[in-house]
Amino acid sequence: VTGPPAGRPRAGQLDAADPLAAFRDRFVLDESQIYLDGNSLGPLPRATQARIAEVVGHEWGSGLAGSWSHWIGLPGQVGDLLGEHLLGAAPGQVAVCDSTTVNLYKLACAALEARPGRSVIVTDDDNFPTDRYVLQGIAAQHGCQLRMIATDLNQGVDEDALRRSLDGHTALVCLSHVAYRSGALADMAAITQIAHDAGALVLWDLCHSVGAVPVHLDASGADLAVGCTYKYLNAGPGAPAFLYVRAGLQQRLRQPVWGWFGQRDQFAMGAGYDPAPGIGAFLTGTPQVIGTVAVQQGVELLAEAGIGKLRAKSAALTSYLIDLADDWLAPSGITVASPRDDHRRGGHVTLAHPDAGPISQALIGQNVICDYRTPDRIRLGPAPAYTRFTDVWDALDTLRQILISRSYLNQPAAHSAATY
Amino acid sequence: VTGPPAGRPRAGQLDAADPLAAFRDRFVLDESQIYLDGNSLGPLPRATQARIAEVVGHEWGSGLAGSWSHWIGLPGQVGDLLGEHLLGAAPGQVAVCDSTTVNLYKLACAALEARPGRSVIVTDDDNFPTDRYVLQGIAAQHGCQLRMIATDLNQGVDEDALRRSLDGHTALVCLSHVAYRSGALADMAAITQIAHDAGALVLWDLCHSVGAVPVHLDASGADLAVGCTYKYLNAGPGAPAFLYVRAGLQQRLRQPVWGWFGQRDQFAMGAGYDPAPGIGAFLTGTPQVIGTVAVQQGVELLAEAGIGKLRAKSAALTSYLIDLADDWLAPSGITVASPRDDHRRGGHVTLAHPDAGPISQALIGQNVICDYRTPDRIRLGPAPAYTRFTDVWDALDTLRQILISRSYLNQPAAHSAATY
Repeated sequence: VTGPPAGRPRAGQLDAADPLAAFRDRFVLDESQIYLDGNSLGPLPRATQARIAEVVGHEWGSGLAGSWSHWIGLPGQVGDLLGEHLLGAAPGQVAVCDSTTVNLYKLACAALEARPGRSVIVTDDDNFPTDRYVLQGIAAQHGCQLRMIATDLNQGVDEDALRRSLDGHTALVCLSHVAYRSGALADMAAITQIAHDAGALVLWDLCHSVGAVPVHLDASGADLAVGCTYKYLNAGPGAPAFLYVRAGLQQRLRQPVWGWFGQRDQFAMGAGYDPAPGIGAFLTGTPQVIGTVAVQQGVELLAEAGIGKLRAKSAALTSYLIDLADDWLAPSGITVASPRDDHRRGGHVTLAHPDAGPISQALIGQNVICDYRTPDRIRLGPAPAYTRFTDVWDALDTLRQILISRSYLNQPAAHSAATY
Repeated sequence: VTGPPAGRPRAGQLDAADPLAAFRDRFVLDESQIYLDGNSLGPLPRATQARIAEVVGHEWGSGLAGSWSHWIGLPGQVGDLLGEHLLGAAPGQVAVCDSTTVNLYKLACAALEARPGRSVIVTDDDNFPTDRYVLQGIAAQHGCQLRMIATDLNQGVDEDALRRSLDGHTALVCLSHVAYRSGALADMAAITQIAHDAGALVLWDLCHSVGAVPVHLDASGADLAVGCTYKYLNAGPGAPAFLYVRAGLQQRLRQPVWGWFGQRDQFAMGAGYDPAPGIGAFLTGTPQVIGTVAVQQGVELLAEAGIGKLRAKSAALTSYLIDLADDWLAPSGITVASPRDDHRRGGHVTLAHPDAGPISQALIGQNVICDYRTPDRIRLGPAPAYTRFTDVWDALDTLRQILISRSYLNQPAAHSAATY
């Protein structure tokens, strides 16, 4: 056992030079803990806390039903804001609505219907569970085949394997932009082209990338996308998700849940369903107002920081984390289970160890909040809007001490609570 | 033109004798207006305002992702609470999740699949738009027929007409318990029996009845139900909806949106979708936490008042409203467009007049908040938890004066904002 490593002053220098350092004060954070789980649930922005109180007390409490004249435009307005600042999407293509799961269902059904005669959906076998389950359900209901390409758990989807899996039967390719387990970042433009070369549509899950890495939906030629807002967008537990439908596809695609918020002239309450023009046709029921306002606040905060600066800091934080893991933790059996190339890695880093479960619990017990992933992974998400280089140093030092002392062997088996 | 009518002291006596009078103080209400639109969006309960602040500041702000260990049980727990106090449903049959529209879709698809060989869905032609649109979409997607029974706009569904419309091809009957336009209250047990006699399943929309009239799902033999929480449950704009699936049907029915919150062992994140036992299989994506907590508060408030007392007061309020309309407004061309029998009427009363649009606007302009319904209807919802008999008296007197003065003729054409 060696003494504590040198180098913390270097982390302090990196913090001092951080152009985003001041954004940390925008969040409610407990200084007694290091929160590396913003890739699961982002912390509360102070402005969001105030804005929710205003929406509840003033818009609902005083404005009552009359506030719907303002609220009704929110799904599209906040969608446009998200599109402009974080998704590379021109106006009229993004809406904030429903959950990621429901949006995946709506868009995958719509895509399948738009590719008649094709009956194969392709995803990867390590895609996030809800993606796999939703697609499995759709395949069963539509008599289609769900083809799962074998994926390296540390490196993400292999483009050659993907290309080989596609043919004239492929209707839809559905993949995550950043892999939830490894943090591997897919090349959206290249993979979209591979799907299009086979005549398939592509649906991107942006849950683990939106707000962490720049997304260029329009420039990549992407067809469809969904994502959640409670991770890097910091919109709170169960805040509504979003969906993107490329403008050129909106007229051709028809989603299956024909609700009154997707109706062209909603309050005429006409006899027949007549889908609204544009992205409005992809809405369903009454929108979740408080959560949508929280999305707006979250996007505005990140827009002010700038996704370019956020990404640069994120790459520096995760690279620093990997360097410390190599230096300090490899002798204790930790391996890095994320891509080492900054350009292939999103906003989180995953470490592998056979005792990852109890080690995660021990870390949380020492106020370093991470999450455990089956079977042997520890996920660390140093979100750039509020994480300091000294936080990474301290977290890794805590982990180092846990590993050296083997104190984690006294932990009960992990039940992964912090995994949303 | 006569002078002002007598009788306001009588309203004051009714308020003095009201066992629920104290509940008015539980709500944030503007004393300068009379809010008769709680059947669209209920007002803010003070306890809900405080509880949302606590969930945001403490559970999210301080507890962060660790709070999921508590939050994850909310959809079922709040569903059970709702089932016990307001739906007549034993535990394990109700979940709070998604929107009414999405829940309608999920349950109607599940019902259709459970009745193979039957290809007709029956609803009424004045059912709420989202119900009609969702069913129309499902019929189109499944190659089924949507049969709409002609309905009296003032009296609701005719049971004989319904019976005649059913046969061995009917898979599902989907109706509203209380009609959104007229307030007509259907006989749930009788209609459920009519559907069952034809071998069909029945799906009840409880949006306009839950919290206003006692609902006895189990005792009625109902199969399926959905409803919203932002009307009489006062859970706020876009708060999550609920669904009910009779225990005996849960194993046989499979809903189409296979999400990770419906998975048996969610955090094993296994390869294949394996639906959770019981009502959990009808969940989809990550639940809306703030809204679900607001539902809990809303249900607890009504449970404390007691649905029996709420219903008794509601019937008295609406009966009083109808009496005043007959006495004061009939000479000005107003007709009552709701059932006159208390046992056939839910919590709101609808008045018809050819100039209903501008009259509604004039009423709102004089701080009596109602809503307009095409083509010629004014909806007045004196929710019993906070509406006084003097409010009804004052509202009808205001309406009387508007009609006599014909001041509404100066109003612009109505755009119905308050109609959610």
